[in-house]
Amino acid sequence: MSAPIIVTGMTGGTPELGRLNQVIAEAVEEFGLGMGVGSQRIAIEKQETRETFSIARKSAPNAPIIANIGAPQLMKGYGVKEVMDAINMIEADAIAIHLNPAQEVFQPEGEPDYSMDILYKLKDISRSLDVPVIIKETGSGLSMEVVSLFYSNGFKYFDVSGQGGTSWISVEMFRGERKNNWKTESAKLFLDWGNPTAASIIEARISATDAFIIGSGGIRNGLDIAKAIALGADIGGFALPALKAAISGKEALREFFRKTIFEIKAAMFLSGSKSLNDLAKAPLVI
Amino acid sequence: MSAPIIVTGMTGGTPELGRLNQVIAEAVEEFGLGMGVGSQRIAIEKQETRETFSIARKSAPNAPIIANIGAPQLMKGYGVKEVMDAINMIEADAIAIHLNPAQEVFQPEGEPDYSMDILYKLKDISRSLDVPVIIKETGSGLSMEVVSLFYSNGFKYFDVSGQGGTSWISVEMFRGERKNNWKTESAKLFLDWGNPTAASIIEARISATDAFIIGSGGIRNGLDIAKAIALGADIGGFALPALKAAISGKEALREFFRKTIFEIKAAMFLSGSKSLNDLAKAPLVI
Amino acid sequence: MSAPIIVTGMTGGTPELGRLNQVIAEAVEEFGLGMGVGSQRIAIEKQETRETFSIARKSAPNAPIIANIGAPQLMKGYGVKEVMDAINMIEADAIAIHLNPAQEVFQPEGEPDYSMDILYKLKDISRSLDVPVIIKETGSGLSMEVVSLFYSNGFKYFDVSGQGGTSWISVEMFRGERKNNWKTESAKLFLDWGNPTAASIIEARISATDAFIIGSGGIRNGLDIAKAIALGADIGGFALPALKAAISGKEALREFFRKTIFEIKAAMFLSGSKSLNDLAKAPLVI
Amino acid sequence: MSAPIIVTGMTGGTPELGRLNQVIAEAVEEFGLGMGVGSQRIAIEKQETRETFSIARKSAPNAPIIANIGAPQLMKGYGVKEVMDAINMIEADAIAIHLNPAQEVFQPEGEPDYSMDILYKLKDISRSLDVPVIIKETGSGLSMEVVSLFYSNGFKYFDVSGQGGTSWISVEMFRGERKNNWKTESAKLFLDWGNPTAASIIEARISATDAFIIGSGGIRNGLDIAKAIALGADIGGFALPALKAAISGKEALREFFRKTIFEIKAAMFLSGSKSLNDLAKAPLVI
Ligand SMILES: Cc1cc2nc3c(=O)[nH]c(=O)nc-3n(C[C@H](O)[C@H](O)[C@H](O)COP(=O)(O)O)c2cc1C
Ligand SMILES: Cc1cc2nc3c(=O)[nH]c(=O)nc-3n(C[C@H](O)[C@H](O)[C@H](O)COP(=O)(O)O)c2cc1C
Ligand SMILES: Cc1cc2nc3c(=O)[nH]c(=O)nc-3n(C[C@H](O)[C@H](O)[C@H](O)COP(=O)(O)O)c2cc1C
Ligand SMILES: Cc1cc2nc3c(=O)[nH]c(=O)nc-3n(C[C@H](O)[C@H](O)[C@H](O)COP(=O)(O)O)c2cc1C
Repeated sequence: MSAPIIVTGMTGGTPELGRLNQVIAEAVEEFGLGMGVGSQRIAIEKQETRETFSIARKSAPNAPIIANIGAPQLMKGYGVKEVMDAINMIEADAIAIHLNPAQEVFQPEGEPDYSMDILYKLKDISRSLDVPVIIKETGSGLSMEVVSLFYSNGFKYFDVSGQGGTSWISVEMFRGERKNNWKTESAKLFLDWGNPTAASIIEARISATDAFIIGSGGIRNGLDIAKAIALGADIGGFALPALKAAISGKEALREFFRKTIFEIKAAMFLSGSKSLNDLAKAPLVI
Repeated sequence: MSAPIIVTGMTGGTPELGRLNQVIAEAVEEFGLGMGVGSQRIAIEKQETRETFSIARKSAPNAPIIANIGAPQLMKGYGVKEVMDAINMIEADAIAIHLNPAQEVFQPEGEPDYSMDILYKLKDISRSLDVPVIIKETGSGLSMEVVSLFYSNGFKYFDVSGQGGTSWISVEMFRGERKNNWKTESAKLFLDWGNPTAASIIEARISATDAFIIGSGGIRNGLDIAKAIALGADIGGFALPALKAAISGKEALREFFRKTIFEIKAAMFLSGSKSLNDLAKAPLVI
Repeated sequence: MSAPIIVTGMTGGTPELGRLNQVIAEAVEEFGLGMGVGSQRIAIEKQETRETFSIARKSAPNAPIIANIGAPQLMKGYGVKEVMDAINMIEADAIAIHLNPAQEVFQPEGEPDYSMDILYKLKDISRSLDVPVIIKETGSGLSMEVVSLFYSNGFKYFDVSGQGGTSWISVEMFRGERKNNWKTESAKLFLDWGNPTAASIIEARISATDAFIIGSGGIRNGLDIAKAIALGADIGGFALPALKAAISGKEALREFFRKTIFEIKAAMFLSGSKSLNDLAKAPLVI
Repeated sequence: MSAPIIVTGMTGGTPELGRLNQVIAEAVEEFGLGMGVGSQRIAIEKQETRETFSIARKSAPNAPIIANIGAPQLMKGYGVKEVMDAINMIEADAIAIHLNPAQEVFQPEGEPDYSMDILYKLKDISRSLDVPVIIKETGSGLSMEVVSLFYSNGFKYFDVSGQGGTSWISVEMFRGERKNNWKTESAKLFLDWGNPTAASIIEARISATDAFIIGSGGIRNGLDIAKAIALGADIGGFALPALKAAISGKEALREFFRKTIFEIKAAMFLSGSKSLNDLAKAPLVI
């Protein structure tokens, strides 16, 4: 990678969403960045949607690409077979398993289930994989407890996705998924629940000293990425801002990346950092 | 009780207010919660109003129900007889003695009187009772000093009713009791006087390690109750929000309880608490 | 005195202002409070205005009354004779020497002069007096340094008149004294210069453990007085609010005192203070 | 100098800007203050513009006047010859070398270059000079690291020019220099980058105990200067406010200086400071 930036997983499943994966992949390939795809559950279950994900690899033959499956799927029966299917579908360099307890608890249908089984199951599955597993939140921020637990069980990749950026409620509204329901009002009470990105990065670094940490959740420009790295992240991740740019078209996304990379360099220069390692030691304040 | 929620004492004395006691009692019975009735002084003094209180027990045969008498009544002559009358009237499981120095001092007629006599009198009376006595504030919050004093004299139940929710001034305006009077302006100066609910819960727990503590005053939803418990309360209590729902009718109150219970569960789930005991140790922030 | 309240010196010199001294004096006498008159320089220099000050003693034969002279007058030649004249004119129980460096420095005409001479001169004069000298600020707050200096030279009475209430600029506008002048704009920069009342009371008490301290400057009701006493003052003082009430008439001022006294009592009751001594130890927060 | 005030370098190069140098110089001479001229690069490169700088010395034969060259010029080839030219052009008493990394990084054309070479080059050049070199920021504030580095290499004069006043973006807009360019948007992200003036003064004083420190950046009146001195500066500096007054004409600038000097005296008087040394120890708060 030539800049410490990834686009975290969001999309895929319909032709339009596949087209967004393609736009992101092409730009990511050009700028030497990485990307994740959205949850691949749909492609595992409906063959005809696979291409909306595999287009990412086709458009970005050399970029790091991250597969994506939700923890609830693992609890409801997914095993090595499905996880490997997700990885192979896009020749992924890693797979993110996303946790979203906040969404689970407020969804109209569901009884959430986050027992320790998920840890054991994941530990088990990961033994059969060639690529690393990334423990990923989706906007409420990994906590010290969760990072410690997975780290002490051998996991070494974390995407904190902290509170402060896109919330799962807005994601659902974006996707038109949230039905009007008495839980919606309660859900609003919990909108600012979670671990803010800055705290989440610091806590993850403290709990997992030599892990690879993606600082994400509310990252909006290169200065934010520089700050995330100064707090302990290895690279920064965007979701919504990259999606918005991609929707405006490939040129808008390229412009967005160009500016972001320039801003990271500016922050390095102004803080007297000659390398990302120096930046990690710079006294930037969020 | 199947959820850590009570409705604290507010009402009774007229047919309409008795009807509200009935609505609250029916809902409380259905959801497995507890409730208090309002001050029973009127029923002790006017036989014909007793039914507006006893309706609570009739409508909630199994729920914990709390009788209610004001400290000033004890100072002005009430003894074991009246207190037992209040308890028996509703087959109460406990009796709350409410303190309201803030209201006393600003009422047009009165000279307030809160000498230590109240403690001795109450200690004396409680020896003759079969049910526990709850020391209850009414919106200005029990202080460390008051809790310590009663606790060291053997009292083990406290309803903190802290500052931050309904104030006694609004209660009086609700009841149409506050006459226009030069003290009213002075009273406004003292509107935020008192111990805020969070501080009050913490101080009560510190002063009375093994007491049963009701966290109340400004509790407005299940997340608030979860926070109160995380700060040291055993259960949470609402007054005004439950009254408002009850005025809208039984269905509104049931909806209110359903949401509240769900929110407590959500907070438990998201903080990884498997029990109320776990919740009491969770790092929730008010 | 039957309540810890004084009206600090403000007025006198013209028939209308004399009439205000009379209104204040009558009310103060009735309620058992104390009062100061405004600067007596004019009466020392113009015999015909003496009565506008002496009316205070005539209307309040038993109340503590405080004479008033500005420090600049002492520097410009006033001595024992003039000071005793001021005291005798109103049969004063004490004399306040007011400091107003902020006003001096910004007045159009003047070169301010606050050398240590004032201390020596005052020490000298005070030896010839039968009544105590009060070191009084006028809205910028006595500082720790000033209180220490005077205290270590034997002075034991201080009126802090801290920043936060009436400022000397508003006083001058009230009196129509401030001429439009290029210093006015600079003066505004310094409007919040000074020691806030709360800090000033605390600092005075720390520097002068056994002194008599008047807590004043921005005191607006009985709760403020209670807080001032809790911070270390012996009594509280009002200027502008008492003046405004007096301008509305004697009845308004009586109403104002009645409310203030009641509020002090309410604060004592609610903080569980049985005496002013108890109040001085109460944990009130400003 | 008869007051601790300088106008920091801003202008020169065109007849109108030369006229402003003249206005500033005349007023500075009259009030016994000091001044700097703007970057002299243009005059070094275009002979015909020299007079717009030398007019300063001609109009202020006795005032301290400071020459000005940007660090980038040194990196791009300027040496002793050019620096001495700048000094001689105005018979300067010192030369300020200004750093502006923030501007460099965001200018459309440029690759910024701030290696340690600048330090070595400057150290070298300064050996051939008769006047001291001032290390000067331009609105982002010298940091502890930069001051320490130069101080430990023998430099003893610093103009902190901290963040909080004029920013280089507004300077460029003032000069009509900022072309519309995709970097402009990124530049806005960094608008409040930098070391705030108060912090910058404190850090400079800590790092360079016996250096001469100009407290500047956002200084707007005499009270600000007094505060800067209380924080550790030797004198205070204005740029934009002096320029604005000069644009309004000589009389406006004289009025501005008169007020500023009066305000410094007022602050000294009110804090009981008899000298600038006393002021440096006064507990003023920014
Ligand atoms: C439209 C949208 C869809 C998303 N879908 C997924 C998903 O399928 N899997 C996942 O792990 N995260 C998903 N996320 C969460 C993001 O990866 C990211 O963690 C979160 O949005 C916070 O980052 P942001 O503030 O930069 O948007 C989605 C986010 C958005 C905005
Ligand atoms: C209309 C109304 C009437 C009340 N009457 C009583 C009462 O009779 N006895 C009592 O102990 N508290 C009474 N209270 C106080 C409440 O029990 C409770 O302590 C207080 O309102 C704070 O809780 P909240 O903020 O949830 O309303 C009353 C409150 C309200 C709103
Ligand atoms: C109209 C007016 C006139 C005053 N005149 C005097 C005076 O002659 N002598 C004096 O010591 N203080 C004088 N003061 C200052 C007051 O005594 C008092 O210190 C100051 O106003 C702050 O108190 P406050 O905020 O309650 O008004 C005057 C204040 C006012 C409002
Ligand atoms: C119009 C303008 C031009 C400036 N030009 C220069 C310059 O040529 N050289 C320099 O060292 N600083 C220059 N500066 C920076 C000022 O000297 C000063 O460091 C900065 O403006 C902050 O001070 P202020 O907040 O009082 O304006 C300039 C500032 C302004 C407003």
